[in-house]
Amino acid sequence: MHITPRFVDLLALYRAELLERVVPFWLAHAIDWPNGGILTCISDEGQVLSTDKYMWSQLRAIWTFSALYNKIEARQEWLDVARHIFDFAKKYGRDEQGQWVFCVNQAGRILQGATSIYADGFAIYGLTEFARATGDPEAIDLALATYENVQRRLARPGSYHTEPYPLPAGVKAHGISMIFAHVFDELGHFLNNQEIIQAAFIHAMEIMNVFRRRSNRNLIYEFVNLDGSLIDSPQGRAIVPGHAIESMWFMIHFFQKLGDGVHTEWAIKTIKRHVELGWDEEYGGLLLSVDAAGGTPWWKFADSKIWWPHTEALYALLLAYDLSHEDWCLDWFAKVHNYAFSHYPVTPYGEWTQKLDRQGRKFTETVALPVKDPFHLPRALIYCIEVLQRLADKAPGVIAAV
Amino acid sequence: MHITPRFVDLLALYRAELLERVVPFWLAHAIDWPNGGILTCISDEGQVLSTDKYMWSQLRAIWTFSALYNKIEARQEWLDVARHIFDFAKKYGRDEQGQWVFCVNQAGRILQGATSIYADGFAIYGLTEFARATGDPEAIDLALATYENVQRRLARPGSYHTEPYPLPAGVKAHGISMIFAHVFDELGHFLNNQEIIQAAFIHAMEIMNVFRRRSNRNLIYEFVNLDGSLIDSPQGRAIVPGHAIESMWFMIHFFQKLGDGVHTEWAIKTIKRHVELGWDEEYGGLLLSVDAAGGTPWWKFADSKIWWPHTEALYALLLAYDLSHEDWCLDWFAKVHNYAFSHYPVTPYGEWTQKLDRQGRKFTETVALPVKDPFHLPRALIYCIEVLQRLADKAPGVIAAV
Repeated sequence: MHITPRFVDLLALYRAELLERVVPFWLAHAIDWPNGGILTCISDEGQVLSTDKYMWSQLRAIWTFSALYNKIEARQEWLDVARHIFDFAKKYGRDEQGQWVFCVNQAGRILQGATSIYADGFAIYGLTEFARATGDPEAIDLALATYENVQRRLARPGSYHTEPYPLPAGVKAHGISMIFAHVFDELGHFLNNQEIIQAAFIHAMEIMNVFRRRSNRNLIYEFVNLDGSLIDSPQGRAIVPGHAIESMWFMIHFFQKLGDGVHTEWAIKTIKRHVELGWDEEYGGLLLSVDAAGGTPWWKFADSKIWWPHTEALYALLLAYDLSHEDWCLDWFAKVHNYAFSHYPVTPYGEWTQKLDRQGRKFTETVALPVKDPFHLPRALIYCIEVLQRLADKAPGVIAAV
Repeated sequence: MHITPRFVDLLALYRAELLERVVPFWLAHAIDWPNGGILTCISDEGQVLSTDKYMWSQLRAIWTFSALYNKIEARQEWLDVARHIFDFAKKYGRDEQGQWVFCVNQAGRILQGATSIYADGFAIYGLTEFARATGDPEAIDLALATYENVQRRLARPGSYHTEPYPLPAGVKAHGISMIFAHVFDELGHFLNNQEIIQAAFIHAMEIMNVFRRRSNRNLIYEFVNLDGSLIDSPQGRAIVPGHAIESMWFMIHFFQKLGDGVHTEWAIKTIKRHVELGWDEEYGGLLLSVDAAGGTPWWKFADSKIWWPHTEALYALLLAYDLSHEDWCLDWFAKVHNYAFSHYPVTPYGEWTQKLDRQGRKFTETVALPVKDPFHLPRALIYCIEVLQRLADKAPGVIAAV
């Protein structure tokens, strides 16, 4: 059945998905009230599969529950959850060098140390959003300390690890510039700290001028040599469309704050490029990875249909439409929406399954981490709700385009 | 843009239309707290155009606010409104013979007496739903007194008036059997009163066996001779598809309670017949009236696109699908939904405009009464929400059909 929606109808639909299904799933199954933090090795049916606590997930969950409070509605219940996880992370999250660790057990004892600087990125992210909700000076101090710590390590390639995606020597990763461009943007603008905004700018320029190759119609390469040259190998040709799309809405957020329309426009074009590149015309959905030269992709599970590229694309496409008013944004939004909502939601539990093969069948092998955490899906829904509210106010009728 | 919804998505959409737009419109603009009752001569923008109070609208509004409380959520605010209008109607609504009057002024003084037995029908309807919410013995007594009064008058054709559709001598109207079949059904089953259920049954049989003509593929004639024969005149050939469709969901409600699958099936076929007959292939939307023989319709504004045939069809089609699981129900539902939601909602005020011409342009001449009242639209939304909830529980995925 096909419905021609108004933006206000999509708004109702996305609000219901977030508030009646996704958030209740996490509140019902995951908050570890006796031991602190949140359980994130959890099945689609809400069963706890392991009590290991990946710090990355704790920190992302702080972001999500704080953002619900900041961006959707100031419900005390959500802030209480954010603080509960914040308290756990603050107590058990860092090693003696002030680096965020990778995994702790249910009680908070370290199982795996600081093997991923991505955890530090998510720390800055979660702490900033929590500070926005609470003004908590401890959260701000911890975010700033993490920023200083991370900057020292980032200045020395090889001094840090990047689990779950180890980085070969002499290579730099789009993922690093991407996360730090975004979390420095968030922290820098929250504190109105020009040094941190400048640090975000440097990473944003890396993304737009080094990882993005205009010569190859705006492809975003996941890995390049330290000097910025392309790597002529399967790994060097790895494109992850969902990652590129997520990166581009990070860029749009950043460049919009700077009033930089030119880079915003490039980011929008780059979103289009990767949705088109990643779309599987045969089975629908976005492929996890493709080879830039059309060869066999190097990435594991390259032809799988993972939930997060779809949630990232949903928001990126709505945001691109809000800024460009170009019909292709809504055309692609509808395609991604229809694929996602017909494949990922798990009734009656309310969260989305994460991993489908190319044909859309569920599989259980671990793709990145053995976790299911409240992040990509609720974050995309939160941001979609924000942009749909703006669009509904501007354009009340049915969406004629396409 | 086309979205492939799940029932749960339609549920969110219909809930938002009812609870975020339609009900707030009435609460903001229409409740006459100082004088009692509700103002229902009101513009799409919420401006009060006249303080005359058509009793029919008061009584329907009692139904709506009581049904919100009974069927959507037990919000005290809604029950307070229902009681506020009930108090006004109880005090000023009837003449010395216990007949419900047609129109009073803002303070409750009669402007037009008992010129429409339809008002009595809506009295039974509103009072029953209010009694369901409150158990109020006064409401039950008043509903029963109205039932007795109406039955005496209905037994003597010519003894009662039928504003706004006067009835020629020797003619009986589908509208009369339709309203009393439904409101006797509601009152009879609420009180478990077999006499009243039997009275509903008699009217239901009139509809199914007299006004509905199997020989003309289930057409429902609005007027027939008292002996049940067809009237060979333009008025006699008048078909009002929206009315027939509304009548058929009344029938389904009734026959489902009786466990009568055969009549339910006929009612479903009759819905299909009238949606097909009424649909304007050229401009979209349901025509108000057509001539059974394909001639020039007798009905005023026959080619207009009035809101209520669409709201009635939305519910009738979902209900038909819930019972039959036949794809045509959803096919037509989507067509009617897309026409209705792209033509009637008035942003940012939240209610629907009522009268469009064949091409979909708003017009202002009075079609039946110069009122806008909280009835057809919220009632359809309330019932759609009920059936969508059932369908969502049974079929969680996207709606593949059609």
